[in-house]
Amino acid sequence: MGDETETIAELKARALRFRDERSWRSFHNPKDLVLALVAEAGELCELVLWKDPAQLEAELREEPARSRFADEIADVQNLLLLLVDAVDLDLSDAFVKKLEANAAKYPVAKASGSARKYTELG
Amino acid sequence: MGDETETIAELKARALRFRDERSWRSFHNPKDLVLALVAEAGELCELVLWKDPAQLEAELREEPARSRFADEIADVQNLLLLLVDAVDLDLSDAFVKKLEANAAKYPVAKASGSARKYTELG
Amino acid sequence: MGDETETIAELKARALRFRDERSWRSFHNPKDLVLALVAEAGELCELVLWKDPAQLEAELREEPARSRFADEIADVQNLLLLLVDAVDLDLSDAFVKKLEANAAKYPVAKASGSARKYTELG
Amino acid sequence: MGDETETIAELKARALRFRDERSWRSFHNPKDLVLALVAEAGELCELVLWKDPAQLEAELREEPARSRFADEIADVQNLLLLLVDAVDLDLSDAFVKKLEANAAKYPVAKASGSARKYTELG
Repeated sequence: MGDETETIAELKARALRFRDERSWRSFHNPKDLVLALVAEAGELCELVLWKDPAQLEAELREEPARSRFADEIADVQNLLLLLVDAVDLDLSDAFVKKLEANAAKYPVAKASGSARKYTELG
Repeated sequence: MGDETETIAELKARALRFRDERSWRSFHNPKDLVLALVAEAGELCELVLWKDPAQLEAELREEPARSRFADEIADVQNLLLLLVDAVDLDLSDAFVKKLEANAAKYPVAKASGSARKYTELG
Repeated sequence: MGDETETIAELKARALRFRDERSWRSFHNPKDLVLALVAEAGELCELVLWKDPAQLEAELREEPARSRFADEIADVQNLLLLLVDAVDLDLSDAFVKKLEANAAKYPVAKASGSARKYTELG
Repeated sequence: MGDETETIAELKARALRFRDERSWRSFHNPKDLVLALVAEAGELCELVLWKDPAQLEAELREEPARSRFADEIADVQNLLLLLVDAVDLDLSDAFVKKLEANAAKYPVAKASGSARKYTELG
């Protein structure tokens, strides 16, 4: 276990086993999965708001904030895995393809050190 | 490449290489990464709304909807990987731990076939 | 009280009084208010997911779902009012201006009965 | 026009007129309206991210950032109005009721100057 050895397929298999043991597949259409993903993303928002950025970074390295943050990240990851299963996509392929497209939109020479959107790069 | 062989660490290494080639690390505090994740999740919402669920599922299996959906999922995945890096978490560990906690909240006997929240399971 | 007589300014005054009695103004920068708005929007998502659309509409007309939904809508409204105050905008003016811009993007002749995005109208 | 004179009912009437001129009512079930609201909230996120909070506040007082921000706020407001219409709620009543509930959760004496969630107030 752990990021060094766990493949996406293995992580996904865990998510699907959990789902199928509970016979939840029929609820998992793309629309509801997206809503669920946003609900979890909203919980991530709750964990970072009203806090000074530097103080927040420090807090997130200590318990209990660290585990609560990890839990919400895991929930979003779970929904992503359920979503790629529901629409039958390979997540790694999609990811690599998108990074390549982003590389074209954000060429190193122009984007370096800049937080501007690609539509606003000079 | 592909979900069967790609590890989380490999996927994360791709995300970090992209970030570091552009010197974006200093922008990537947890608060802004969560905002970016929600912005991407919002784009997922846009791709599923106003559509009949069955028609949507059919559409998402065909181009161009399929690739656009894959792109937005990839963007959310990218932000999750940047986020676990920013707060120094192991994503697989967090995921497995959370599934175990969820298993306790949603025991198979009670949750099977039900979409109720754990707080409402009888 | 009620939508027929309550002005936006009156609604906003209520939101600001609540905020100022608790000395919360200093927390209310645009970034955190947007995060708070998304957190509330995420709670709205939770109230509509996994449900058949027709069954959901029926449920939302009965208690307790009706009041819970109203509460989350009120929370989003509250954040919007705090947000326009933080950046010193007139909400009604912004609203009317945006509807006019939308009218140009979605001309009645082309948009009638269609859920397509303006970029995809023929 | 403007917040001082515009009632919620008047703002809502504008939103409904726009909708009905385009025969969009049939698309406006609660689930899709919530998805649309989140899509708009995601655009708000995009306008505030990667920016230093103080610099952002300054930017949002100048054009073009000011109008773009106003536009996204207007979009969220529009969805809220369509949503209360779809489920037949009085927005002002819901708002006042929720503020009263919040006042009980956040008593002035305990919440003053604190950004803690009500569940964490001592």
